[in-house]
Amino acid sequence: MLITKHQNIIDNAVKANHERTFYAQYPEHPKAYGEEAPAKGGQAFKEQLNQPFTRLKQKVMEGMAGEEVSPYTQEPLGITYPVIAVDELVSAGKRAGERWAALSVADRANILTETLEKIKDHFFEIAHATMHTTGQSFMMSFQASGPHANDRALEAIAMGYQQLQHFPEKLNWEKPMGKFSIKLEKSFKAVPKGLGVVIGCSTFPVWNSLPGMYADLVTGNPVIVKPHPKAVLPIAIAVAVIQQVLEENGQDPYTCQLAVDSSDHLITKELCEHPQIALIDYTGGSSFGNYVESLGGRGKTVFTEKAGVNSVILDSVKDIDAVLQNLAFSVSLYSGQMCTAPQNFFIPESGVGTPDGKLGFNEVAAKFRDAITALVNNPKMGAGTLGAIQNEATLQRVKDAAQLGGKILLNGTAVVNEEYQAARTCSPAVIEVSSADHGIFERELFGPVVLLVKTKDTAHSIQLARKMAEQHGAITCGAYTTDETVKDNIATAMNSVFTPVSFNFTGFIWMNQHAAFSDFHVTGGNPAGNASFTNQEFIVKRFVWVGNRTYVD
Amino acid sequence: MLITKHQNIIDNAVKANHERTFYAQYPEHPKAYGEEAPAKGGQAFKEQLNQPFTRLKQKVMEGMAGEEVSPYTQEPLGITYPVIAVDELVSAGKRAGERWAALSVADRANILTETLEKIKDHFFEIAHATMHTTGQSFMMSFQASGPHANDRALEAIAMGYQQLQHFPEKLNWEKPMGKFSIKLEKSFKAVPKGLGVVIGCSTFPVWNSLPGMYADLVTGNPVIVKPHPKAVLPIAIAVAVIQQVLEENGQDPYTCQLAVDSSDHLITKELCEHPQIALIDYTGGSSFGNYVESLGGRGKTVFTEKAGVNSVILDSVKDIDAVLQNLAFSVSLYSGQMCTAPQNFFIPESGVGTPDGKLGFNEVAAKFRDAITALVNNPKMGAGTLGAIQNEATLQRVKDAAQLGGKILLNGTAVVNEEYQAARTCSPAVIEVSSADHGIFERELFGPVVLLVKTKDTAHSIQLARKMAEQHGAITCGAYTTDETVKDNIATAMNSVFTPVSFNFTGFIWMNQHAAFSDFHVTGGNPAGNASFTNQEFIVKRFVWVGNRTYVD
Repeated sequence: MLITKHQNIIDNAVKANHERTFYAQYPEHPKAYGEEAPAKGGQAFKEQLNQPFTRLKQKVMEGMAGEEVSPYTQEPLGITYPVIAVDELVSAGKRAGERWAALSVADRANILTETLEKIKDHFFEIAHATMHTTGQSFMMSFQASGPHANDRALEAIAMGYQQLQHFPEKLNWEKPMGKFSIKLEKSFKAVPKGLGVVIGCSTFPVWNSLPGMYADLVTGNPVIVKPHPKAVLPIAIAVAVIQQVLEENGQDPYTCQLAVDSSDHLITKELCEHPQIALIDYTGGSSFGNYVESLGGRGKTVFTEKAGVNSVILDSVKDIDAVLQNLAFSVSLYSGQMCTAPQNFFIPESGVGTPDGKLGFNEVAAKFRDAITALVNNPKMGAGTLGAIQNEATLQRVKDAAQLGGKILLNGTAVVNEEYQAARTCSPAVIEVSSADHGIFERELFGPVVLLVKTKDTAHSIQLARKMAEQHGAITCGAYTTDETVKDNIATAMNSVFTPVSFNFTGFIWMNQHAAFSDFHVTGGNPAGNASFTNQEFIVKRFVWVGNRTYVD
Repeated sequence: MLITKHQNIIDNAVKANHERTFYAQYPEHPKAYGEEAPAKGGQAFKEQLNQPFTRLKQKVMEGMAGEEVSPYTQEPLGITYPVIAVDELVSAGKRAGERWAALSVADRANILTETLEKIKDHFFEIAHATMHTTGQSFMMSFQASGPHANDRALEAIAMGYQQLQHFPEKLNWEKPMGKFSIKLEKSFKAVPKGLGVVIGCSTFPVWNSLPGMYADLVTGNPVIVKPHPKAVLPIAIAVAVIQQVLEENGQDPYTCQLAVDSSDHLITKELCEHPQIALIDYTGGSSFGNYVESLGGRGKTVFTEKAGVNSVILDSVKDIDAVLQNLAFSVSLYSGQMCTAPQNFFIPESGVGTPDGKLGFNEVAAKFRDAITALVNNPKMGAGTLGAIQNEATLQRVKDAAQLGGKILLNGTAVVNEEYQAARTCSPAVIEVSSADHGIFERELFGPVVLLVKTKDTAHSIQLARKMAEQHGAITCGAYTTDETVKDNIATAMNSVFTPVSFNFTGFIWMNQHAAFSDFHVTGGNPAGNASFTNQEFIVKRFVWVGNRTYVD
């Protein structure tokens, strides 16, 4: 074994992964990382601006490229990255993979945990990089791309560590045959499937990429990371650290490569279709995701997280204000640009049950609108909760949503960000639609768009939410009810289309959040994606058990 | 919990499955099942001949059908089975599945183990049924369709029992937030994917079907079993027992249904393509198997065992006679109609190393031919080892093989079976081909056809065997070498294309055999099939983890 110093971290992660109670190897509080870390991280980010990114151990083959623009300043970051031809990436990855595959899973898990411990030292730099590529607030950037992403990576390491040790490496098999016995020496090997590609998205460039990367790596597969060309820096920092640690531990740094492309010459399809690519992890829109899934028919193993339309079912509540404040935050957080953000709110035409009787649909809608307005206009909360809009297409989508035919209850408008006057911002638009307006609420309107759908009753709400998840996919579902039978009905209906339900969330927890070591992220069972962070399938499909037998005289 | 009496069997099976040392819940010796069992089983089989099969709990919807013919007597069995329309099967299965899915995995595992304990009482009847549909010898019929199949089913139960308990059913999650904490009640459910279809083959109607059936059932999915129309009875007996036990335990017998069709109206495609079918297990030829795999693109989860071309690499041996006797048995056993039977024997032109120096290619070939002839003509061994040929197409394939262009060293000929004069039999044909004759040895010649391929040297043999497995699939590979370096090279090369290797088998163990609880059957990594009895993937792809969360005030 090469290094064993992280065995304790790995063992704790395996235990946490099973038990699924609260666990975090990497605390989400910035203060946990020392007094000097914030300034050091900010400085490192500033120094990288307008400079080539030279930290990778990959050779520059075809020049440098970079096109990142801060959603906060709307200015280019001016950072360039080495561009390498697909064939070069593939052959270097294949070569590096042989040494990596020969390691035991314990060695790989230890080296990979070491990479996380080293990435930790860059959490603040990665936070700035995430903020100025995705438009997330600084705090969300820190948590999502830092500790939360590292915990998701560790979760994948732990699951791999465990699954690859499901069967013994060697054993003696002896079959009694009466007067004699037959003896065989047997050995079992988890043979890695081959070179992997991880395709990143522009909104969560680290959180959504690390699980696939670490799942590939822990199971012995080399990996090529292909970030969105508008969100490279956050994951480039992580890849550079991984390469450094690989080299320090006698491994080939090309085991984990960064593949940078540009909007006018995207290489994703070329990479995915390369015959040497065995594994693909994808996060992004459904249209390209469906194409990636179709490559499963060409013998590739594919893991996707695509888009879904998330619902909230409002039946009855203990405290309507607490509920609507919670939901106002859910739809405002990062301006609805989370794949877990709710879009469709199914509310019965007779209203929502409260301890004081039914609150009518219009009153609930007005209260919700007011809660959103209050949050958005709160000088201490608004800009920080919303962050910025990653790209113009999302902004346009909010404008277009107003033309869809619903009743506009609240327009999406620019929100002043005191620190970044040029920030691309937009508050949530709230639109009332009837349950007959399928054409409107049956599509994902990614970004700050909230649809309030008036239904006949809660049974109708459940029926519509279920149908949405079954046909268009769903990653989350929120539900509010004080009635145990209704709760069971919602759970049964939504779970039957492989959608998890968060019941009665108020206070400082939101349905958008999926905690590592406890919540599965995406179930893999509906059109929102075919994979799940991190169930057994996410790991075991990346390798093949092969057993050899030798006759013993 | 309904019944718990089999917990000990389940626990032992889980342990055996992990440890992979020799284990059998159902002994393979016929004598283990009591003195009366053989006669009782024979009698039950005889009484069923020329009668409708009325033991199923399914309603006869569209009349009765049956077209089985004994390969031993070449007479129809005269047994008919209820024919039911696909839509009826599907809706009955869906309905039954709801109650079944609501059970705990422990309840399901106990009921399913009870079905195996009851199937055990029919081992001899199933043996006769298998013999007179597949052409296997009585002993192979008994072992393969009886104890070995039951053990494979128990293996699937055990893996399911374990994987579904990987995460807790309920837990309290508490996240410390400094002065307060956030509390959630969480629950995790392994939601079954839906109705399954298991498509059987004509040569191993029970052994190859039980794993998929029990994998579906233990994970909470109802299943429809679609046997080959020429080999219905063996699995019909098992399904009838399963339905009986289901009913005795308060379950809907339609949870496991038999779907019988006829050669002039096959329903397999209609069944597979039905939108309500979520899972498909298939054993059979590659062409239909590739079609079944293509249904993966339509959202179905597919498990296949197709055809492969299995190789033997002969490098060096301690005792050439012991080796060739072992291999002669391997190619003769059930007349090469096992998916694990070797077809291509790669032998260097310079011959095979022995303690007395190299034995030339021609001498090895002659010795092999003689070993086969001696076995075939041995009155105590020949007919019993070969069994009968399941269908005319296989017989024709042996005849055609003689026309392929190789050098005929031994013709396949009819072999006298003293007990069944009318038996359809054929001894192995042995054909020498050059390594340039790709067109001949690159296809699967299912049945008693042995190709001896003359190679430049062992490195060349390895290269060809590896390429065969990579391009055409392989389920097994035999190798003989006394050189540790060559052994490593063979293991590395074949394992890299996800093919297991059996080294230096002599005596009473053959490369064709894959033992439950120890050997994986098919790796799932090469074109011979995408699934493996029974790795984690064989189980975890049949359900989806879904978690619900409830906020605790």
